[in-house]
Formats: sequence, structure tokens, C-alpha cells
Amino acid sequence: MSKKILLSHGGGGEETQNLIKELFFKHFDNEILLRMEDAASLVMGSTKIAFTTDSFVVSPLFFKGGNIGKLAIAGTVNDLSMMGAKPKYLTCSFMIEEGFEYAKLEEIVISMRDEMAKSGVKIVAGDTKVVPRGGVDGLFINTAGIGEIQYEGISAHNLTEGDVIIVSNEVGNHGACILATREEIELESDLQTDCASLWKPVEALINAGVKIHALRDATRGGLSAVLNEWAETSKVCIEVDEAKIPVAQEVKGVCELLGFEPYEFANEGTMVICLPQSEAQKALEVLQTFPETAKCAFIGKVTTAFTCKVILHTPWGSERFLEPPKGELLPRIC
Amino acid sequence: MSKKILLSHGGGGEETQNLIKELFFKHFDNEILLRMEDAASLVMGSTKIAFTTDSFVVSPLFFKGGNIGKLAIAGTVNDLSMMGAKPKYLTCSFMIEEGFEYAKLEEIVISMRDEMAKSGVKIVAGDTKVVPRGGVDGLFINTAGIGEIQYEGISAHNLTEGDVIIVSNEVGNHGACILATREEIELESDLQTDCASLWKPVEALINAGVKIHALRDATRGGLSAVLNEWAETSKVCIEVDEAKIPVAQEVKGVCELLGFEPYEFANEGTMVICLPQSEAQKALEVLQTFPETAKCAFIGKVTTAFTCKVILHTPWGSERFLEPPKGELLPRIC
Repeated sequence: MSKKILLSHGGGGEETQNLIKELFFKHFDNEILLRMEDAASLVMGSTKIAFTTDSFVVSPLFFKGGNIGKLAIAGTVNDLSMMGAKPKYLTCSFMIEEGFEYAKLEEIVISMRDEMAKSGVKIVAGDTKVVPRGGVDGLFINTAGIGEIQYEGISAHNLTEGDVIIVSNEVGNHGACILATREEIELESDLQTDCASLWKPVEALINAGVKIHALRDATRGGLSAVLNEWAETSKVCIEVDEAKIPVAQEVKGVCELLGFEPYEFANEGTMVICLPQSEAQKALEVLQTFPETAKCAFIGKVTTAFTCKVILHTPWGSERFLEPPKGELLPRIC
Repeated sequence: MSKKILLSHGGGGEETQNLIKELFFKHFDNEILLRMEDAASLVMGSTKIAFTTDSFVVSPLFFKGGNIGKLAIAGTVNDLSMMGAKPKYLTCSFMIEEGFEYAKLEEIVISMRDEMAKSGVKIVAGDTKVVPRGGVDGLFINTAGIGEIQYEGISAHNLTEGDVIIVSNEVGNHGACILATREEIELESDLQTDCASLWKPVEALINAGVKIHALRDATRGGLSAVLNEWAETSKVCIEVDEAKIPVAQEVKGVCELLGFEPYEFANEGTMVICLPQSEAQKALEVLQTFPETAKCAFIGKVTTAFTCKVILHTPWGSERFLEPPKGELLPRIC
């Protein structure tokens, strides 16, 4: 049987990494791409810029706390922010199914406008394709973005023994929210996506002089994917304390009900930060002043116990490896 | 009945312009976007760059002379080239249907690599989404691109009485090729897409010191869309001589058979150039040295006969307005 593309190739876990390395890196080989950061860092003339892209295929298009449009802005703003780059300009491309409701499209466009205002980014070029019914399910949006690098040297290669790991918010909210919507689970409380633009808190960290080693938003593959990629890229061990990882009660509920791990759930406005221990207190104080990062927490540290591995210390004193996410995970989560 | 998105909103003609103006410009209002060029021109630090995006949803994915991958590179390279910008960096996002054949994807990726070599552009960031069966028909690709502006002032606002209009190649080949493939029309000869990266000929025009007023690749909506948009934007009349517009015999055949106009057919490697009459001879000589623009031709001139209108002089001595394309045209042509 001929080899086919599987859902797991798009899950953000191990199979996605393999597809990228075996197919795209093989043919699109160049040193900037191979760095594998959230955005490419480039020099144009004498200016250092970051450049990134993301397509959004989330289903459903509307969910608690957001919609595909908000996601498409925040996602690309965050990819730039994670490179220490001030988001400046976006392009936006709509792929729309014939018959899509104009009013829904306008609602999405308005969400995009509102989300752009939060970081001051602008859409400067666009494209619209309409495909006959059945050619695409509703609406896909691609955004690409350019930012001005304001803090250099952030990289997945920089983790050093003694560094600490901080998450900026509860983990798993976006994944749990989408899953609950799809499965029509009635949640007692108000679980919603964490979708948010993170440039303001990142800018505040930079302005406060906080030294950052690595920074990444925990999207597809969640916290687990980021930590494992970092451990492997920097050839270190990351040890995290499960009791310290903030997880909303409703997210725990969804996970127990459906057999998922909150650490593998996608987030859309939650970042993981690695920095020297001496910087941790200042970073937490800065993050606490923003509503989108007010629930930030110190969760672990960089050691050399098991190179390229992530160790989870459970509240009961035992420990286990937090393995990189694998398999289908959740298709169309973003 | 609630207002819906129609195929014509994506055709590149009048309805597309209306959607852009009424929905996207309304909410994404900013001066760069409102210029409506093929790519945005931006200043980053002290460097002038062009920035653009395009999503490709062509069906079928493979056709004579190319495939969706070649199209995705040439399309974005050309949008940058049309702004006088040397294409430097691309992002690339794949939206793939579960079950898509790996070997086909690799063939597409290899075409992308080969097409990039022609202009020296590089993919520096990417994204891969896989959606469950039925969520997307096969494969969509988005590319966004950054270029370094090397010739300033190209604009649809620049057409001046006395200027001449040149096309760089036969018109209608891509549209006719896709349509013939879909309709399974057996063509006696070897009609294939004109899909090509146009940076090399544009660079040669710039290096030869040719003064360019306006430049646009005639994609969706074809030659007719470009000329009408220019006439309207610059508030001039464009008069073209039908006998001088190069149209392949097979394209004429497809048009007669199916009731289309070759001037409304999409091209993927054919540009329209407006320049002062004194520059025309030099421009044609430069273009004739490249295989992709060897069939270039002088087709008409800018006058003030009917402001905002395009006049077609037929070989029989009559004349008519070449109206802007309207209606459904050909969905999924690029």
C-alpha cells in the first residue's frame, strides 16, 4: 500500500516532526529553516526581522472565548512574540466555502480587527479564494506575519542547567474548550479558550530587562511538546513538578472523562519561558500585572538527570517521563 | 434569505473587488492595504520591502506544465516581482486532507524546490495542517513572501496618456489548460500552463534602466481584469488592438468550444507592463531574451478617449468596451 498522510502528521507531535524533517527539510534545506524556531529570523538591509506563517482550520469556527479569526491573529502575533519580535504587519488569506454566511464572515473579520488592536499589528495584504461546496469545510484562514526583533538570542538551543521553567497561564484550556464543544459536554462553569495575543506581556518582560533563554507558546502538542522539544534541542533534562502546573478544574474534568492529558492539549495564549533562576521572581512579577498571564507559575527546572528527557514529579512523590505527544491527538484544534 | 458568499466573490472580477472593499477594507482599514497593489510595500528600519500572500486551491492539482506546488512558488514570487522587489524569503503552509498520497506530496514539494531555484527565493518558515477526510479537497497551499524593493514607484496609479501597454506572453494559457483538463478536452497540440517565475525578466528590465509605470501579472480575471483595474485607478482610457494580443490557437479553440473570452482567462506567468512609449522598444528587446517572455508583444496605448474604460479595437475595424470580468468565471483556477 502506498504511504499516505495521516492525521497524526498534523498533530504537532512526533509524527509531525518526522514529516517536517523527512520531507520539507530534505527538499527546502536552508540554514534559517533548519533552526526550527517559531518564526524565521532574517536580516533585511540592516534590520533584523522575524517572519512566520500559520493556517487555521479549527472546527467549530466559533467557541467559548473566541473564533477562528481571533485565533488567526493571536496565533501569528504569538509566533512573532516568541522570537522577541514586535508584531508589525500581517497578511491574511481566506479560503471560503461557497454558501458561507456573510454575517458570520463579518463577525470573524471584526474579531480579527479587535485582536489586532491589542498588539497594534496591521493587515497589509490579503487574498480571498472561494471554493465550490465540499471543497473546504466552511472557512480556513492563513496569516503570515513580520515583526521587528527587539530582543535577540531567544532559542530552543539555550536551555542551561540551573535555569527555571515558567508557564504564563493555566494549561490545556483551548484544547479542552474545543473538545467539550465538539462532544457537547455541558460544563458547570465557564471554561473558555485561553486564546490571547501575548506581545504586551513579552514586551513588558523585555522592557523590565528580564533575561530570557527560551520562549514558546504551547500550541499543538501542548506543554508536553514544548518541553520535550527543548530538552532534545538543548540536550538537557527538564524536571517539572506536577503539583505546580496550573490546570483548571474543568480541564481536569474533561481529561478524566475522555482520557486525555492536559499537558498535551493545545493552548492559544499560553507560553512557556525558560530563564536563569535569578530572573524568575522579576519575570513572575511582570507577568502577574497582565490579565492574560496573571495565573503564571514556576513549574520546574533544567537539570542533567536524563539528557533529552522531561521528568514529571507527581504529587505523590513518584516520578515518570513526560513523553512527547504522539498519535492523532486532536485534529482541527487550531 | 441571509447573504451568502458566492463563487463569484472569489473570481477576481467585480464581485471580488466589492467584497474586498465592503468587508475587508471596512474593518482592516489602513493606508498600506488600501493601496491595493500586488504586494504591500513597507519600510522596516531603513529597508524597503514588499510583503504578500496567496493561497492556492487549484483543481486538479496536477496539469500540463505544472502542479499546485510550482504555482504556489511562482505566484508569490510574481506578486513580489510586480512591485519591483527581489523575492527573498517565503513561508509555506500546507493544508492536507487525511489520506493524501505521500508520493504526490513529495512530487509537489520537489516542484516547489525547483521553482524556487529559478529566482533564488528560500522557504524559511512553514506550517502543516492535516484535516480529516472531507475537510479539504486534497491539498491547499499558502505561500507568503518578502522581497527587497529594487525599483520604486511602480503603481496602478501611474498610467499616463501616451504610455504603451505590453504583454509578456500569450494570454489565457493557464485558464485554458485547466479548463481543458477538467473537461477532458483532447487538444491536438501541447497546450500547457504559462506558469513561470517572472523575477529574472523583471530584474533584467530594471538593470537595463527601463522606466516602468505599472506592472501586474494577469492572474484571476486575466488581462481584462488588469486593464480595467488600471484604467479605473489611474482614471485613463486603455485602447488595445485585438489583432496584436498574442493568443495561442488552442486557447482560441477552447474559448470557442466553451464560450469563454481568452482575455478573462487566468495566467500564472504572464505580466502586463505599462511604460512610456520611448521605453517600449528596449523593454521588448530585453523580454525577448527570456524563454518565458519571448512571445511578448505591444498591444495598445493609454489615451483619454473614455475615462476608466478599456476599448478593444477588433481586426474588422470595429471597437467595443472590454468590460471588467464578472460572475463565476472559473473557480479553483489557482
